[in-house]
Amino acid sequence: MGGNIFGNIFRVSTFGESHGEAIGGIIDGCPSGFKINIEKIQLDLDRRRPGQSYIVSKRKELDKVKFLSGIFNKKTTGSPIGFIIKNIDKKSEDYEHIKNIYRPSHSDFTYEKKYEIRDYRGGGRSSARETACRVVAGSIAKQLMKNIKITAYVSSVGSIYLKKSYKELDISKKSIEKSYIRCPDINISKKMISKIKEVKNNGDTIGGTITCIIKNIPIGIGEPVFDKLHSELGKAMLSINAVKGFEYGSGFKGTEMTGSQHNDELYDLDGKTKTNFSGGIQGGISNGMDIYFKVAFKPVATIMKKQKTINNIGGFCFADGKGRHDPCVLPRAVPIVESMAALVLIDYWMYAKLSKYNSIF
Amino acid sequence: MGGNIFGNIFRVSTFGESHGEAIGGIIDGCPSGFKINIEKIQLDLDRRRPGQSYIVSKRKELDKVKFLSGIFNKKTTGSPIGFIIKNIDKKSEDYEHIKNIYRPSHSDFTYEKKYEIRDYRGGGRSSARETACRVVAGSIAKQLMKNIKITAYVSSVGSIYLKKSYKELDISKKSIEKSYIRCPDINISKKMISKIKEVKNNGDTIGGTITCIIKNIPIGIGEPVFDKLHSELGKAMLSINAVKGFEYGSGFKGTEMTGSQHNDELYDLDGKTKTNFSGGIQGGISNGMDIYFKVAFKPVATIMKKQKTINNIGGFCFADGKGRHDPCVLPRAVPIVESMAALVLIDYWMYAKLSKYNSIF
Amino acid sequence: MGGNIFGNIFRVSTFGESHGEAIGGIIDGCPSGFKINIEKIQLDLDRRRPGQSYIVSKRKELDKVKFLSGIFNKKTTGSPIGFIIKNIDKKSEDYEHIKNIYRPSHSDFTYEKKYEIRDYRGGGRSSARETACRVVAGSIAKQLMKNIKITAYVSSVGSIYLKKSYKELDISKKSIEKSYIRCPDINISKKMISKIKEVKNNGDTIGGTITCIIKNIPIGIGEPVFDKLHSELGKAMLSINAVKGFEYGSGFKGTEMTGSQHNDELYDLDGKTKTNFSGGIQGGISNGMDIYFKVAFKPVATIMKKQKTINNIGGFCFADGKGRHDPCVLPRAVPIVESMAALVLIDYWMYAKLSKYNSIF
Amino acid sequence: MGGNIFGNIFRVSTFGESHGEAIGGIIDGCPSGFKINIEKIQLDLDRRRPGQSYIVSKRKELDKVKFLSGIFNKKTTGSPIGFIIKNIDKKSEDYEHIKNIYRPSHSDFTYEKKYEIRDYRGGGRSSARETACRVVAGSIAKQLMKNIKITAYVSSVGSIYLKKSYKELDISKKSIEKSYIRCPDINISKKMISKIKEVKNNGDTIGGTITCIIKNIPIGIGEPVFDKLHSELGKAMLSINAVKGFEYGSGFKGTEMTGSQHNDELYDLDGKTKTNFSGGIQGGISNGMDIYFKVAFKPVATIMKKQKTINNIGGFCFADGKGRHDPCVLPRAVPIVESMAALVLIDYWMYAKLSKYNSIF
Repeated sequence: MGGNIFGNIFRVSTFGESHGEAIGGIIDGCPSGFKINIEKIQLDLDRRRPGQSYIVSKRKELDKVKFLSGIFNKKTTGSPIGFIIKNIDKKSEDYEHIKNIYRPSHSDFTYEKKYEIRDYRGGGRSSARETACRVVAGSIAKQLMKNIKITAYVSSVGSIYLKKSYKELDISKKSIEKSYIRCPDINISKKMISKIKEVKNNGDTIGGTITCIIKNIPIGIGEPVFDKLHSELGKAMLSINAVKGFEYGSGFKGTEMTGSQHNDELYDLDGKTKTNFSGGIQGGISNGMDIYFKVAFKPVATIMKKQKTINNIGGFCFADGKGRHDPCVLPRAVPIVESMAALVLIDYWMYAKLSKYNSIF
Repeated sequence: MGGNIFGNIFRVSTFGESHGEAIGGIIDGCPSGFKINIEKIQLDLDRRRPGQSYIVSKRKELDKVKFLSGIFNKKTTGSPIGFIIKNIDKKSEDYEHIKNIYRPSHSDFTYEKKYEIRDYRGGGRSSARETACRVVAGSIAKQLMKNIKITAYVSSVGSIYLKKSYKELDISKKSIEKSYIRCPDINISKKMISKIKEVKNNGDTIGGTITCIIKNIPIGIGEPVFDKLHSELGKAMLSINAVKGFEYGSGFKGTEMTGSQHNDELYDLDGKTKTNFSGGIQGGISNGMDIYFKVAFKPVATIMKKQKTINNIGGFCFADGKGRHDPCVLPRAVPIVESMAALVLIDYWMYAKLSKYNSIF
Repeated sequence: MGGNIFGNIFRVSTFGESHGEAIGGIIDGCPSGFKINIEKIQLDLDRRRPGQSYIVSKRKELDKVKFLSGIFNKKTTGSPIGFIIKNIDKKSEDYEHIKNIYRPSHSDFTYEKKYEIRDYRGGGRSSARETACRVVAGSIAKQLMKNIKITAYVSSVGSIYLKKSYKELDISKKSIEKSYIRCPDINISKKMISKIKEVKNNGDTIGGTITCIIKNIPIGIGEPVFDKLHSELGKAMLSINAVKGFEYGSGFKGTEMTGSQHNDELYDLDGKTKTNFSGGIQGGISNGMDIYFKVAFKPVATIMKKQKTINNIGGFCFADGKGRHDPCVLPRAVPIVESMAALVLIDYWMYAKLSKYNSIF
Repeated sequence: MGGNIFGNIFRVSTFGESHGEAIGGIIDGCPSGFKINIEKIQLDLDRRRPGQSYIVSKRKELDKVKFLSGIFNKKTTGSPIGFIIKNIDKKSEDYEHIKNIYRPSHSDFTYEKKYEIRDYRGGGRSSARETACRVVAGSIAKQLMKNIKITAYVSSVGSIYLKKSYKELDISKKSIEKSYIRCPDINISKKMISKIKEVKNNGDTIGGTITCIIKNIPIGIGEPVFDKLHSELGKAMLSINAVKGFEYGSGFKGTEMTGSQHNDELYDLDGKTKTNFSGGIQGGISNGMDIYFKVAFKPVATIMKKQKTINNIGGFCFADGKGRHDPCVLPRAVPIVESMAALVLIDYWMYAKLSKYNSIF
């Protein structure tokens, strides 16, 4: 516990607050002898960083990651990979006014009650800024699992839904990255962006969902009972800031179905199934079909409106929205979803190598 | 990993297959000096066991738990609590015919690919029979957290939804236990039961959702970043057999809202909020309001119909539904949801005692 | 923590008190497809059990282990292996008189202060009876690592030392098992036994050391920095009841040497070294040479003499030695040392499979 | 595992190689609201750093630690504490000549076999340089446990032993720090230093032992069975570079005693004992008496002599001693021993708060 370490075999520890000097992390358990492509990591960081477009926060962070250990002659050595990302464009003065205030639906109140002290500058540790470190680690994990394809995209903003299945869409990176909102359907994408502009102009924010597809995962990844593959994917997604829900395969919709409708017929001697309501996982273990899941994000809590609230000196007050914030967290969350999926998969994949006696001893 | 241990501080290890001699577990980290009420544990087991009513499996298991250690003069000693539950009414011969068959949407295929061997009798380790051990541990956890109230109930069966909020319902145990389906609304309850009978008569099964409410949880439970309280609750729920989704607070519905609609105004100097879209958790840490979440269960995979599938000797075949199965897993899953919630809460609650310097040293 | 779970990949949880109904455990992470030889496990248990000879405790326990799960058609399935050993020959009345007494150099005082409650019957959880479960798990681990040879023997009793190196001795099981004390030198063995008889007749007990040799371990087992192979071996040995010290390779004696004396020259292109002061481990990782270490056991605390002490009701009193106890723990500790070594090795061996990129992905 | 994370509750992750840009770490689980004295940490680092005196390595490292997170207004916030220490005085060219060579009794061979790649500069990750991070974390732990006194000192160098018990010595920091070798007896200290000079002039190195005393530890710290307090202390000590052995209380000497000699009589109603052969720990749990243990260090492997060995291209060769090395690791290891003891104690102390029901719920 402690809360800042993720994974069992491929373990990531992170540190850092939104307005501290730097954020960073350590990857322990990365196998040796792999040539890391640092440019690719930076590309993922660039998809997450603020200031990419007019529908996200204007904070200017280059988010350049610097590796301090664990890499020698461009290859991983098996030693822990330490890295840092400097915080450059801090405007801590924007937060002086909320020093004593508990902003609604933020973690100000809970952090202060839990710890009796709170770094209020930019949300401190509770800021989504920490997710940059997840992207560094997740991006390395994606590279290591070279044949796996993890693709996330925005599937709804507010009540604007992309109703098509991923099978009817072009979900290549190129297609998704074409739009600021990272939705692979041009028309829906336009509607989503104009919805975000609308709420932004209104000083407001909006929620949405992200869908993630994982292709080419080998059969046998995932553990029984408490550590099912989808349980850990769920935990990973729910640990991302603003997430309120997770479903995989048929999800909540599947609860309305009967067994005869829902069961996936095995039609191929390799185990392929006609339908895939199972979402690529049976009994917590991958079956070789595509894994797909959906993640629900609430609207960002910081709005540019006056809100009634309380402070930590026993009084009522108003919280004003200052600082540079996202009207909608979705486009920046896409690489975070992919990264967390990658961290789960690599951890379970490595562990799954240890299932059978004959392949160990 | 390994998959059969849950928790960090209050740790539960379980073992056992559906048709083995016994199932059981060990609780490590249970604090000393607590008088366990064994009857209460049995009551929870009785709510989970098969044979309770005509809408659940007819397997006759008394599910009498026997404690082997860790309790002395009726009190916990701080030593590990070992327990077993015998499997009595096994009909392994019902499974001989599926020995080589991969049943659709079961874990037969994935277990066999992962382990190259499979205990096919009653589903082996992948059977929901293992959840009896979760109920034992969870029931103890509930007793330890004496003031906490954890209440789960069935909120939908197929497309029959209980639309009322928990605040409009009598969710006392008495009210919920009145109906076989464990839904606190009598009318909806009747519709659910008749739906289940209908699908059962048709040799089919049906899914549904369970809602869970946690009251009186102290402020400050939950850890930041990767170990948020709702992340672990999500993981715990998704680890229950047949679960396909989890949402808390406003959940998926909340993604359609704007920040100004969704933010929970703090209106009371103790931190109470007017609305509770946050579901009692902010930044991964409990804020003292009710925690509530919803869990999606797919329809049971075993149906009394002939299904096309493959076997493990390279051929196509049919799977026949034999054995004693539930047409709908929901009523029996209610105590399991409560138990897993209790296991998460006690683990995080105990850990939260270690947050502040002044309360430790 | 919690204290009753050992290992990371091959994880053993144990439960049970000396005078409870049964002791037992769960092995989680045992690879699938291995044919376990249950007779061999029983042979190891027989070497540990009381009543083997006149120099050990007379308690009559058959220590028959019963497996409850994880084995199907005689092979491991990858599911957790649950097992129990019944406690048969309890004489709890022998302990009534110490109910309120803190026996010198026992854990009565510390357990009661830590937990405020204490199962005083036979020492409760602090009794070395729990080590039977370690032997079950360790014996399975030994079988899995088929080519590894782990051999422990008694190398001193009191001030009677077996001074020869293991290389000068016949350390085959046959040779060691020939004597009740499990020392491979007949003459020294006789002296040790007569020393034990002498202290026993005097109502007293005596300490000693056990040496352990591990042959045929592959190169590359062990992790850097905090999880060095010898660190975990040390922890494992120090967790055995009555152990006061651990040294490997040159050990304490090596501190008197100079670097030029101590360095092990690599004389063979496969990495073999002329001397082996390193004890088969360099930088925490096995180098393919024999691993060897020594473990120090204090004299058993229960003596058949009146000792002054205190009780838990605020008074002074005497502790009388009753019950059936070992005058010297050494001969029964031999299989325990081997078992704990096996548990460390299998855990690290399995994990070491995940070091190199090319062998995973 | 992975090897670079220590602790369960107070968890330290470290990274960094001897000649990388920086080393550093993250402390997760440090309680909030504590005012850290950074100067004190630096004092401990200064006791460990090279270049302190003519009997240690001449590498010039200021070892200034920089904290990057987890501290706000000088107090800990409960968020992870990230820190780095830059490597300044690297002379990697000193290591070019050993690039392909396996130095005797170093980890060159084992690292390369395990990982197939090795950062040979200054020993890479296997260098004792990583222990600076342990000192940072350990020093914070010492401050948190304000009343505890952890004191280590050199008790032997080669065959020169400090025979007096710690009770006969002035083991105040002042007394110990007076001599370069960190031995509290002036005469023995002089002999030790002249011994070190002698071996150094001879291009050689020498081993020795460190004794550590822990005072004022509360009763009840430590867990049963596998996680005994002394087991974890042993593991922690054995994880320090060059350590070959660990004993606590009566240690190896105690094996020659009888039970009646060794048992510690409880003579005081608070549980104090007349003798303390138990070393302050009974059944793995602290009893309130002083904890004391001894750690064995082998002679440093790098000597200024030509040694025969092999290389990684299939040939025989010679290893020359270059670089700046310690003729005796003991004086610099003193703060490392203290730090590792502190990390074990704080982890177990915090956990021990969760033993009793009444103090949690």
